[in-house]
Amino acid sequence: MKSYGRQELTSPQNPLLRALWRALREGEATPEGAIAVEGPRLVEEALRSSVEVAAVVAARSAEARLAKLEALANGRLQSYVVPDRVFRTLADTETPQGIAALVRLPQRKLEATLAQPRALVLGLVGVQDPGNLGTILRSLEAFGGSACLLTHGTVSPFNPKAVRASAGSLFRVPVFHGLKLREILERCRDYSLETIGLAPGAGRELSQTDLRQPVALFIGQEGSGLPRETLAQLDTVAEIPLAAPVESLNAAMAATLALYEAARQRRS
Amino acid sequence: MKSYGRQELTSPQNPLLRALWRALREGEATPEGAIAVEGPRLVEEALRSSVEVAAVVAARSAEARLAKLEALANGRLQSYVVPDRVFRTLADTETPQGIAALVRLPQRKLEATLAQPRALVLGLVGVQDPGNLGTILRSLEAFGGSACLLTHGTVSPFNPKAVRASAGSLFRVPVFHGLKLREILERCRDYSLETIGLAPGAGRELSQTDLRQPVALFIGQEGSGLPRETLAQLDTVAEIPLAAPVESLNAAMAATLALYEAARQRRS
Repeated sequence: MKSYGRQELTSPQNPLLRALWRALREGEATPEGAIAVEGPRLVEEALRSSVEVAAVVAARSAEARLAKLEALANGRLQSYVVPDRVFRTLADTETPQGIAALVRLPQRKLEATLAQPRALVLGLVGVQDPGNLGTILRSLEAFGGSACLLTHGTVSPFNPKAVRASAGSLFRVPVFHGLKLREILERCRDYSLETIGLAPGAGRELSQTDLRQPVALFIGQEGSGLPRETLAQLDTVAEIPLAAPVESLNAAMAATLALYEAARQRRS
Repeated sequence: MKSYGRQELTSPQNPLLRALWRALREGEATPEGAIAVEGPRLVEEALRSSVEVAAVVAARSAEARLAKLEALANGRLQSYVVPDRVFRTLADTETPQGIAALVRLPQRKLEATLAQPRALVLGLVGVQDPGNLGTILRSLEAFGGSACLLTHGTVSPFNPKAVRASAGSLFRVPVFHGLKLREILERCRDYSLETIGLAPGAGRELSQTDLRQPVALFIGQEGSGLPRETLAQLDTVAEIPLAAPVESLNAAMAATLALYEAARQRRS
Protein backbone atom coordinates (compact mmCIF):
# COMPACT_ATOMS: atom_id res chain seq x y z
CA MET A 1 0.00 0.00 0.00
CA LYS A 2 1.24 3.46 -0.85
CA SER A 3 1.62 5.96 1.98
CA TYR A 4 1.08 9.69 1.73
CA GLY A 5 2.32 12.51 3.90
CA ARG A 6 5.17 14.86 4.49
CA GLN A 7 8.57 13.85 5.84
CA GLU A 8 11.78 15.68 6.69
CA LEU A 9 15.10 14.61 5.20
CA THR A 10 18.42 16.16 6.09
CA SER A 11 21.11 13.93 4.66
CA PRO A 12 22.10 14.30 1.00
CA GLN A 13 23.02 10.60 1.26
CA ASN A 14 19.37 9.59 1.61
CA PRO A 15 18.64 6.98 -1.11
CA LEU A 16 15.63 8.86 -2.51
CA LEU A 17 17.59 12.09 -2.83
CA ARG A 18 20.49 10.23 -4.40
CA ALA A 19 18.15 8.62 -6.93
CA LEU A 20 16.57 11.97 -7.77
CA TRP A 21 19.95 13.66 -8.04
CA ARG A 22 21.29 10.96 -10.33
CA ALA A 23 18.19 11.05 -12.54
CA LEU A 24 18.54 14.83 -12.90
CA ARG A 25 22.26 14.72 -13.57
CA GLU A 26 22.21 11.81 -16.00
CA GLY A 27 18.91 12.61 -17.66
CA GLU A 28 17.85 8.99 -17.44
CA ALA A 29 15.09 7.11 -15.62
CA THR A 30 15.89 5.54 -12.25
CA PRO A 31 16.25 1.73 -12.09
CA GLU A 32 12.63 1.72 -10.88
CA GLY A 33 11.55 3.60 -14.01
CA ALA A 34 10.89 7.01 -12.46
CA ILE A 35 11.95 10.23 -14.16
CA ALA A 36 13.03 13.49 -12.55
CA VAL A 37 11.02 16.67 -12.93
CA GLU A 38 11.96 20.14 -11.70
CA GLY A 39 9.94 23.19 -10.76
CA PRO A 40 6.42 23.64 -9.40
CA ARG A 41 4.77 24.19 -12.79
CA LEU A 42 5.96 20.90 -14.23
CA VAL A 43 5.04 19.00 -11.06
CA GLU A 44 1.60 20.60 -11.30
CA GLU A 45 1.33 19.44 -14.93
CA ALA A 46 2.31 15.94 -13.79
CA LEU A 47 -0.41 15.95 -11.13
CA ARG A 48 -3.01 17.08 -13.67
CA SER A 49 -1.92 14.39 -16.15
CA SER A 50 -2.17 10.64 -15.76
CA VAL A 51 1.39 10.13 -14.52
CA GLU A 52 2.10 8.78 -11.06
CA VAL A 53 3.94 11.31 -8.90
CA ALA A 54 6.06 9.00 -6.76
CA ALA A 55 7.65 11.65 -4.56
CA VAL A 56 7.96 15.43 -4.35
CA VAL A 57 11.05 16.98 -2.79
CA ALA A 58 10.88 20.59 -1.64
CA ALA A 59 13.46 22.99 -0.24
CA ARG A 60 12.52 24.37 3.17
CA SER A 61 12.05 27.83 1.61
CA ALA A 62 9.54 26.39 -0.91
CA GLU A 63 7.12 24.95 1.65
CA ALA A 64 4.32 27.27 0.52
CA ARG A 65 4.68 25.97 -3.04
CA LEU A 66 4.70 22.41 -1.73
CA ALA A 67 1.50 23.04 0.21
CA LYS A 68 -0.23 24.12 -3.01
CA LEU A 69 0.85 20.93 -4.76
CA GLU A 70 -0.35 18.82 -1.81
CA ALA A 71 -3.72 20.57 -2.02
CA LEU A 72 -3.89 19.94 -5.78
CA ALA A 73 -3.24 16.23 -5.10
CA ASN A 74 -5.94 16.19 -2.40
CA GLY A 75 -3.30 15.06 0.05
CA ARG A 76 -2.49 11.95 -1.99
CA LEU A 77 1.16 12.88 -2.27
CA GLN A 78 4.33 11.62 -0.63
CA SER A 79 6.52 14.67 -0.04
CA TYR A 80 9.88 15.40 1.53
CA VAL A 81 11.24 18.67 2.87
CA VAL A 82 15.00 19.18 2.79
CA PRO A 83 17.25 22.05 3.91
CA ASP A 84 17.86 24.63 1.18
CA ARG A 85 21.58 23.81 1.00
CA VAL A 86 20.76 20.14 0.34
CA PHE A 87 18.21 21.09 -2.33
CA ARG A 88 20.74 23.30 -4.07
CA THR A 89 23.03 20.31 -4.62
CA LEU A 90 20.11 18.64 -6.47
CA ALA A 91 18.86 21.28 -8.79
CA ASP A 92 19.75 21.42 -12.46
CA THR A 93 18.07 24.66 -13.49
CA GLU A 94 19.36 28.14 -12.90
CA THR A 95 16.18 29.04 -11.00
CA PRO A 96 14.97 25.73 -9.59
CA GLN A 97 12.28 27.27 -7.35
CA GLY A 98 12.85 24.64 -4.68
CA ILE A 99 10.63 21.86 -6.06
CA ALA A 100 11.57 18.58 -7.74
CA ALA A 101 9.82 15.25 -8.10
CA LEU A 102 10.13 11.68 -9.29
CA VAL A 103 7.25 10.65 -11.55
CA ARG A 104 6.36 7.45 -13.38
CA LEU A 105 5.00 7.68 -16.92
CA PRO A 106 2.17 5.32 -17.86
CA GLN A 107 3.26 2.13 -19.60
CA ARG A 108 2.35 2.32 -23.29
CA LYS A 109 2.24 -0.24 -26.05
CA LEU A 110 3.85 0.82 -29.32
CA GLU A 111 1.47 -1.42 -31.23
CA ALA A 112 -1.58 0.29 -29.73
CA THR A 113 -0.45 3.72 -30.94
CA LEU A 114 0.45 2.46 -34.42
CA ALA A 115 -2.91 0.73 -34.76
CA GLN A 116 -4.83 4.03 -34.43
CA PRO A 117 -6.97 4.60 -37.53
CA ARG A 118 -5.36 7.96 -38.35
CA ALA A 119 -1.97 7.43 -36.75
CA LEU A 120 0.38 10.42 -36.97
CA VAL A 121 3.74 9.23 -35.73
CA LEU A 122 6.99 11.18 -35.52
CA GLY A 123 10.31 9.36 -35.75
CA LEU A 124 13.43 11.16 -34.54
CA VAL A 125 16.70 9.75 -35.82
CA GLY A 126 19.59 11.11 -33.78
CA VAL A 127 18.23 14.48 -32.62
CA GLN A 128 20.78 15.64 -30.02
CA ASP A 129 19.47 18.80 -28.41
CA PRO A 130 17.19 18.15 -25.41
CA GLY A 131 15.49 21.54 -25.87
CA ASN A 132 14.62 20.59 -29.45
CA LEU A 133 13.21 17.25 -28.33
CA GLY A 134 11.05 18.86 -25.65
CA THR A 135 9.74 21.47 -28.08
CA ILE A 136 8.95 18.73 -30.59
CA LEU A 137 6.92 16.81 -27.99
CA ARG A 138 4.93 19.97 -27.27
CA SER A 139 4.23 20.43 -30.99
CA LEU A 140 3.36 16.73 -31.35
CA GLU A 141 0.67 17.04 -28.72
CA ALA A 142 -0.56 20.37 -30.11
CA PHE A 143 -1.09 18.89 -33.57
CA GLY A 144 -2.68 15.65 -32.45
CA GLY A 145 0.28 13.35 -32.98
CA SER A 146 -0.07 9.71 -31.85
CA ALA A 147 3.46 8.97 -30.65
CA CYS A 148 7.11 9.91 -30.85
CA LEU A 149 9.63 7.17 -31.64
CA LEU A 150 13.28 7.86 -30.82
CA THR A 151 16.07 5.81 -32.29
CA HIS A 152 18.96 4.63 -30.17
CA GLY A 153 21.41 7.57 -30.25
CA THR A 154 18.71 10.23 -29.94
CA VAL A 155 18.81 12.37 -26.76
CA SER A 156 16.94 10.89 -23.80
CA PRO A 157 13.37 12.18 -23.33
CA PHE A 158 14.13 12.13 -19.59
CA ASN A 159 16.88 14.73 -19.87
CA PRO A 160 15.71 17.54 -17.53
CA LYS A 161 16.01 20.12 -20.34
CA ALA A 162 13.81 17.98 -22.59
CA VAL A 163 11.26 17.49 -19.81
CA ARG A 164 11.19 21.25 -19.21
CA ALA A 165 10.91 22.22 -22.89
CA SER A 166 8.04 19.76 -23.35
CA ALA A 167 6.02 21.89 -20.89
CA GLY A 168 4.22 18.77 -19.67
CA SER A 169 3.58 17.15 -23.05
CA LEU A 170 5.99 14.35 -22.11
CA PHE A 171 3.46 13.30 -19.46
CA ARG A 172 0.71 12.88 -22.04
CA VAL A 173 2.22 11.94 -25.39
CA PRO A 174 3.40 8.32 -25.87
CA VAL A 175 7.18 8.38 -26.29
CA PHE A 176 9.23 5.26 -27.09
CA HIS A 177 12.99 5.52 -26.98
CA GLY A 178 16.11 3.46 -27.60
CA LEU A 179 14.53 1.81 -30.67
CA LYS A 180 16.42 0.42 -33.63
CA LEU A 181 15.50 2.16 -36.89
CA ARG A 182 14.91 -1.20 -38.52
CA GLU A 183 12.49 -2.14 -35.78
CA ILE A 184 10.59 1.14 -36.22
CA LEU A 185 10.29 0.65 -39.97
CA GLU A 186 9.11 -2.94 -39.57
CA ARG A 187 6.42 -1.92 -37.07
CA CYS A 188 5.31 0.93 -39.34
CA ARG A 189 4.95 -1.50 -42.21
CA ASP A 190 3.07 -4.01 -40.05
CA TYR A 191 0.50 -1.32 -39.37
CA SER A 192 0.48 0.14 -42.92
CA LEU A 193 1.88 3.54 -41.99
CA GLU A 194 3.52 5.35 -44.88
CA THR A 195 7.06 6.30 -43.85
CA ILE A 196 8.02 9.81 -44.99
CA GLY A 197 11.41 11.39 -44.42
CA LEU A 198 12.08 15.11 -44.48
CA ALA A 199 15.19 16.15 -46.38
CA PRO A 200 16.24 19.25 -48.33
CA GLY A 201 16.26 18.88 -52.08
CA ALA A 202 13.81 15.96 -52.10
CA GLY A 203 12.03 17.53 -55.07
CA ARG A 204 8.62 16.69 -53.67
CA GLU A 205 6.91 19.26 -51.45
CA LEU A 206 5.57 18.15 -48.11
CA SER A 207 2.42 20.21 -48.67
CA GLN A 208 1.82 18.23 -51.89
CA THR A 209 2.22 14.91 -50.06
CA ASP A 210 -0.89 13.22 -48.69
CA LEU A 211 -0.60 13.20 -44.90
CA ARG A 212 -4.26 12.34 -44.18
CA GLN A 213 -3.57 8.61 -44.23
CA PRO A 214 -1.66 6.92 -41.36
CA VAL A 215 1.89 8.25 -41.59
CA ALA A 216 5.22 8.20 -39.79
CA LEU A 217 7.27 11.36 -40.39
CA PHE A 218 11.03 11.12 -39.90
CA ILE A 219 13.38 13.94 -38.88
CA GLY A 220 17.17 13.61 -38.69
CA GLN A 221 19.91 15.02 -36.56
CA GLU A 222 20.59 18.75 -36.26
CA GLY A 223 23.17 19.71 -38.84
CA SER A 224 23.47 16.49 -40.82
CA GLY A 225 19.78 15.54 -41.20
CA LEU A 226 18.66 12.02 -42.12
CA PRO A 227 21.47 9.74 -43.35
CA ARG A 228 21.25 8.71 -47.00
CA GLU A 229 20.89 5.03 -46.06
CA THR A 230 17.91 5.89 -43.88
CA LEU A 231 16.23 7.87 -46.68
CA ALA A 232 16.66 4.87 -48.97
CA GLN A 233 14.60 2.73 -46.59
CA LEU A 234 11.61 5.09 -46.41
CA ASP A 235 8.54 5.01 -48.67
CA THR A 236 8.74 8.72 -49.53
CA VAL A 237 11.10 11.66 -49.11
CA ALA A 238 9.61 15.15 -49.02
CA GLU A 239 10.92 18.64 -48.42
CA ILE A 240 9.81 21.96 -47.05
CA PRO A 241 10.85 24.44 -49.76
CA LEU A 242 13.29 27.04 -48.43
CA ALA A 243 14.57 30.25 -49.99
CA ALA A 244 18.33 30.31 -50.70
CA PRO A 245 20.79 30.63 -49.08
CA VAL A 246 19.00 28.92 -46.17
CA GLU A 247 19.75 25.21 -46.53
CA SER A 248 17.94 23.75 -43.58
CA LEU A 249 15.72 24.52 -40.64
CA ASN A 250 16.31 23.85 -36.98
CA ALA A 251 15.18 20.25 -36.26
CA ALA A 252 12.39 21.41 -33.93
CA MET A 253 11.09 23.79 -36.62
CA ALA A 254 11.11 21.07 -39.27
CA ALA A 255 9.25 18.64 -37.01
CA THR A 256 6.73 21.29 -35.97
CA LEU A 257 6.06 22.27 -39.58
CA ALA A 258 5.58 18.65 -40.62
CA LEU A 259 3.08 18.06 -37.81
CA TYR A 260 1.27 21.33 -38.57
CA GLU A 261 1.02 20.38 -42.24
CA ALA A 262 -0.47 16.98 -41.33
CA ALA A 263 -2.99 18.60 -38.98
CA ARG A 264 -3.89 21.21 -41.61
CA GLN A 265 -4.52 18.57 -44.27
CA ARG A 266 -6.54 16.45 -41.86
CA ARG A 267 -8.80 19.38 -40.96
CA SER A 268 -9.54 20.46 -44.51
CA MET B 1 40.79 55.00 -46.84
CA LYS B 2 40.34 51.68 -45.11
CA SER B 3 43.44 49.66 -44.33
CA TYR B 4 43.69 45.88 -44.33
CA GLY B 5 46.16 43.59 -42.63
CA ARG B 6 46.95 41.78 -39.45
CA GLN B 7 47.98 43.43 -36.22
CA GLU B 8 48.93 42.20 -32.75
CA LEU B 9 47.13 43.47 -29.67
CA THR B 10 48.10 42.55 -26.13
CA SER B 11 46.23 44.90 -23.82
CA PRO B 12 42.63 44.12 -22.88
CA GLN B 13 42.32 47.91 -22.51
CA ASN B 14 42.70 48.46 -26.26
CA PRO B 15 39.66 50.53 -27.42
CA LEU B 16 38.69 48.08 -30.16
CA LEU B 17 38.73 45.12 -27.77
CA ARG B 18 36.78 47.11 -25.21
CA ALA B 19 34.15 48.02 -27.83
CA LEU B 20 33.87 44.38 -28.93
CA TRP B 21 33.69 43.15 -25.36
CA ARG B 22 30.98 45.65 -24.47
CA ALA B 23 28.94 44.81 -27.59
CA LEU B 24 29.11 41.10 -26.71
CA ARG B 25 28.25 41.62 -23.07
CA GLU B 26 25.43 44.11 -23.60
CA GLY B 27 24.07 42.64 -26.80
CA GLU B 28 23.84 46.08 -28.34
CA ALA B 29 25.47 47.81 -31.28
CA THR B 30 28.57 49.95 -30.64
CA PRO B 31 28.17 53.75 -30.81
CA GLU B 32 29.55 53.44 -34.37
CA GLY B 33 26.76 51.01 -35.26
CA ALA B 34 28.80 47.80 -35.37
CA ILE B 35 27.52 44.53 -33.91
CA ALA B 36 29.53 41.72 -32.35
CA VAL B 37 29.69 38.28 -33.91
CA GLU B 38 31.34 35.18 -32.45
CA GLY B 39 32.78 32.05 -33.99
CA PRO B 40 34.38 31.32 -37.37
CA ARG B 41 31.18 30.09 -39.03
CA LEU B 42 29.24 33.28 -38.36
CA VAL B 43 32.16 35.47 -39.44
CA GLU B 44 32.32 33.40 -42.63
CA GLU B 45 28.56 33.97 -43.14
CA ALA B 46 29.16 37.68 -42.65
CA LEU B 47 31.94 37.72 -45.25
CA ARG B 48 29.70 35.88 -47.73
CA SER B 49 26.81 38.31 -47.12
CA SER B 50 26.69 42.00 -47.88
CA VAL B 51 27.66 43.17 -44.41
CA GLU B 52 30.85 45.09 -43.78
CA VAL B 53 33.25 43.16 -41.55
CA ALA B 54 34.95 46.02 -39.71
CA ALA B 55 37.44 43.96 -37.71
CA VAL B 56 38.14 40.32 -36.86
CA VAL B 57 39.77 39.45 -33.55
CA ALA B 58 41.43 36.05 -33.18
CA ALA B 59 43.01 34.27 -30.25
CA ARG B 60 46.63 33.29 -30.89
CA SER B 61 45.58 29.61 -30.90
CA ALA B 62 43.01 30.30 -33.65
CA GLU B 63 45.47 31.77 -36.18
CA ALA B 64 44.81 28.95 -38.65
CA ARG B 65 41.08 29.75 -38.60
CA LEU B 66 41.88 33.43 -39.03
CA ALA B 67 44.05 32.67 -42.05
CA LYS B 68 41.10 30.91 -43.71
CA LEU B 69 38.87 33.92 -43.14
CA GLU B 70 41.54 36.26 -44.55
CA ALA B 71 41.74 34.06 -47.63
CA LEU B 72 37.95 34.09 -48.00
CA ALA B 73 38.06 37.91 -47.86
CA ASN B 74 40.86 37.99 -50.46
CA GLY B 75 43.00 39.78 -47.94
CA ARG B 76 40.49 42.65 -47.64
CA LEU B 77 40.19 42.20 -43.90
CA GLN B 78 41.47 44.11 -40.89
CA SER B 79 42.36 41.50 -38.29
CA TYR B 80 43.87 41.45 -34.82
CA VAL B 81 45.58 38.64 -32.97
CA VAL B 82 45.40 38.63 -29.17
CA PRO B 83 46.81 36.30 -26.50
CA ASP B 84 44.43 33.45 -25.60
CA ARG B 85 43.97 34.74 -22.06
CA VAL B 86 42.83 38.13 -23.40
CA PHE B 87 40.45 36.46 -25.85
CA ARG B 88 38.92 34.37 -23.09
CA THR B 89 37.85 37.54 -21.27
CA LEU B 90 35.94 38.51 -24.45
CA ALA B 91 34.07 35.41 -25.37
CA ASP B 92 30.41 34.85 -24.59
CA THR B 93 29.93 31.29 -25.83
CA GLU B 94 30.94 28.14 -24.06
CA THR B 95 33.07 27.10 -27.01
CA PRO B 96 34.05 30.38 -28.64
CA GLN B 97 36.65 28.86 -31.01
CA GLY B 98 38.87 31.91 -30.74
CA ILE B 99 37.23 34.12 -33.37
CA ALA B 100 35.06 37.23 -32.95
CA ALA B 101 34.31 40.22 -35.16
CA LEU B 102 32.63 43.57 -35.38
CA VAL B 103 30.39 43.88 -38.44
CA ARG B 104 28.17 46.63 -39.82
CA LEU B 105 24.77 45.71 -41.23
CA PRO B 106 23.65 47.50 -44.38
CA GLN B 107 21.42 50.52 -43.80
CA ARG B 108 17.84 49.67 -44.77
CA LYS B 109 14.77 51.78 -45.35
CA LEU B 110 11.61 50.48 -43.68
CA GLU B 111 9.51 52.09 -46.42
CA ALA B 112 11.39 50.21 -49.14
CA THR B 113 10.61 46.83 -47.58
CA LEU B 114 6.94 47.69 -46.96
CA ALA B 115 6.54 48.88 -50.55
CA GLN B 116 7.41 45.44 -51.98
CA PRO B 117 4.53 44.14 -54.11
CA ARG B 118 4.11 40.95 -52.05
CA ALA B 119 5.46 42.17 -48.72
CA LEU B 120 5.53 39.52 -45.97
CA VAL B 121 6.44 41.31 -42.78
CA LEU B 122 6.77 39.87 -39.29
CA GLY B 123 6.13 42.09 -36.27
CA LEU B 124 7.43 40.92 -32.88
CA VAL B 125 5.81 42.55 -29.88
CA GLY B 126 7.88 41.91 -26.78
CA VAL B 127 9.56 38.59 -27.61
CA GLN B 128 12.18 38.17 -24.86
CA ASP B 129 14.28 35.12 -25.66
CA PRO B 130 17.26 35.88 -27.93
CA GLY B 131 17.36 32.26 -29.15
CA ASN B 132 13.73 32.56 -30.25
CA LEU B 133 14.43 35.82 -32.07
CA GLY B 134 17.41 34.33 -33.92
CA THR B 135 15.44 31.24 -34.91
CA ILE B 136 12.60 33.46 -36.14
CA LEU B 137 15.00 35.43 -38.35
CA ARG B 138 16.25 32.17 -39.85
CA SER B 139 12.66 31.09 -40.59
CA LEU B 140 11.83 34.54 -41.97
CA GLU B 141 14.61 34.24 -44.52
CA ALA B 142 13.75 30.60 -45.29
CA PHE B 143 10.15 31.50 -46.14
CA GLY B 144 10.90 34.62 -48.15
CA GLY B 145 9.90 37.20 -45.54
CA SER B 146 10.52 40.86 -46.37
CA ALA B 147 11.44 42.25 -42.96
CA CYS B 148 11.20 41.81 -39.22
CA LEU B 149 9.92 44.71 -37.14
CA LEU B 150 10.66 44.67 -33.41
CA THR B 151 8.80 46.84 -30.98
CA HIS B 152 10.58 48.68 -28.22
CA GLY B 153 10.80 46.14 -25.39
CA THR B 154 11.61 43.20 -27.67
CA VAL B 155 15.02 41.58 -27.17
CA SER B 156 17.84 43.20 -29.16
CA PRO B 157 18.66 41.51 -32.49
CA PHE B 158 22.31 42.21 -31.66
CA ASN B 159 22.28 39.99 -28.57
CA PRO B 160 25.03 37.41 -29.27
CA LYS B 161 22.59 34.51 -28.70
CA ALA B 162 20.17 36.00 -31.23
CA VAL B 163 22.98 36.53 -33.73
CA ARG B 164 24.10 32.92 -33.27
CA ALA B 165 20.61 31.40 -33.50
CA SER B 166 19.94 33.35 -36.71
CA ALA B 167 22.79 31.35 -38.33
CA GLY B 168 23.65 34.34 -40.52
CA SER B 169 20.09 35.35 -41.47
CA LEU B 170 20.52 38.56 -39.45
CA PHE B 171 23.12 39.62 -42.04
CA ARG B 172 20.65 39.30 -44.89
CA VAL B 173 17.11 39.93 -43.63
CA PRO B 174 16.08 43.56 -42.97
CA VAL B 175 15.49 43.97 -39.23
CA PHE B 176 14.17 47.19 -37.68
CA HIS B 177 14.15 47.47 -33.92
CA GLY B 178 13.10 49.80 -31.14
CA LEU B 179 9.92 50.77 -33.02
CA LYS B 180 6.69 51.97 -31.43
CA LEU B 181 3.76 49.66 -32.17
CA ARG B 182 1.71 52.68 -33.30
CA GLU B 183 4.42 53.64 -35.73
CA ILE B 184 4.52 50.10 -37.17
CA LEU B 185 0.75 50.01 -37.63
CA GLU B 186 0.70 53.42 -39.31
CA ARG B 187 3.44 52.44 -41.74
CA CYS B 188 1.65 49.15 -42.51
CA ARG B 189 -1.52 51.08 -43.29
CA ASP B 190 0.37 53.59 -45.44
CA TYR B 191 1.54 50.69 -47.60
CA SER B 192 -1.77 48.75 -47.51
CA LEU B 193 -0.46 45.74 -45.59
CA GLU B 194 -3.14 43.78 -43.79
CA THR B 195 -2.15 43.48 -40.14
CA ILE B 196 -2.84 40.00 -38.72
CA GLY B 197 -2.22 39.01 -35.11
CA LEU B 198 -1.79 35.44 -33.91
CA ALA B 199 -3.69 34.58 -30.75
CA PRO B 200 -5.22 31.39 -29.33
CA GLY B 201 -9.00 31.22 -29.48
CA ALA B 202 -9.30 33.76 -32.31
CA GLY B 203 -11.94 31.55 -33.93
CA ARG B 204 -10.50 32.12 -37.38
CA GLU B 205 -7.87 29.68 -38.64
CA LEU B 206 -4.64 31.06 -40.04
CA SER B 207 -4.77 28.52 -42.88
CA GLN B 208 -8.20 29.93 -43.84
CA THR B 209 -6.88 33.49 -43.86
CA ASP B 210 -5.60 34.92 -47.15
CA LEU B 211 -1.86 35.52 -46.76
CA ARG B 212 -1.10 35.97 -50.47
CA GLN B 213 -1.71 39.71 -50.34
CA PRO B 214 0.81 42.05 -48.61
CA VAL B 215 0.60 41.19 -44.91
CA ALA B 216 2.21 41.94 -41.58
CA LEU B 217 1.95 39.05 -39.11
CA PHE B 218 2.25 39.85 -35.40
CA ILE B 219 3.53 37.56 -32.65
CA GLY B 220 3.49 38.42 -28.95
CA GLN B 221 5.68 37.71 -25.98
CA GLU B 222 6.46 34.19 -24.76
CA GLY B 223 3.90 33.24 -22.15
CA SER B 224 1.50 36.16 -22.36
CA GLY B 225 1.15 36.54 -26.15
CA LEU B 226 -0.19 39.69 -27.80
CA PRO B 227 -1.86 42.13 -25.37
CA ARG B 228 -5.60 42.58 -25.82
CA GLU B 229 -5.17 46.27 -26.68
CA THR B 230 -2.75 45.34 -29.45
CA LEU B 231 -5.15 42.77 -30.92
CA ALA B 232 -7.87 45.45 -30.96
CA GLN B 233 -5.72 47.60 -33.24
CA LEU B 234 -5.08 44.92 -35.87
CA ASP B 235 -7.17 44.26 -38.98
CA THR B 236 -7.51 40.53 -38.28
CA VAL B 237 -6.80 38.03 -35.51
CA ALA B 238 -6.16 34.41 -36.49
CA GLU B 239 -5.16 31.25 -34.69
CA ILE B 240 -3.28 28.04 -35.28
CA PRO B 241 -5.68 25.37 -33.97
CA LEU B 242 -4.11 23.35 -31.15
CA ALA B 243 -5.29 20.17 -29.47
CA ALA B 244 -6.17 20.52 -25.77
CA PRO B 245 -4.63 20.78 -23.25
CA VAL B 246 -1.90 22.63 -25.19
CA GLU B 247 -2.79 26.30 -25.01
CA SER B 248 0.02 27.91 -26.91
CA LEU B 249 3.14 27.25 -28.90
CA ASN B 250 6.64 28.49 -28.31
CA ALA B 251 6.90 31.99 -29.92
CA ALA B 252 9.50 30.83 -32.45
CA MET B 253 7.24 27.91 -33.47
CA ALA B 254 4.23 30.20 -33.91
CA ALA B 255 6.22 32.67 -36.03
CA THR B 256 7.74 29.89 -38.13
CA LEU B 257 4.32 28.31 -38.76
CA ALA B 258 2.83 31.65 -39.77
CA LEU B 259 5.64 32.28 -42.24
CA TYR B 260 5.42 28.72 -43.58
CA GLU B 261 1.67 29.10 -44.07
CA ALA B 262 2.17 32.35 -45.99
CA ALA B 263 4.85 30.75 -48.19
CA ARG B 264 2.65 27.71 -48.78
CA GLN B 265 -0.32 29.82 -49.86
CA ARG B 266 1.86 31.97 -52.10
CA ARG B 267 3.28 28.92 -53.90
CA SER B 268 -0.05 27.27 -54.58
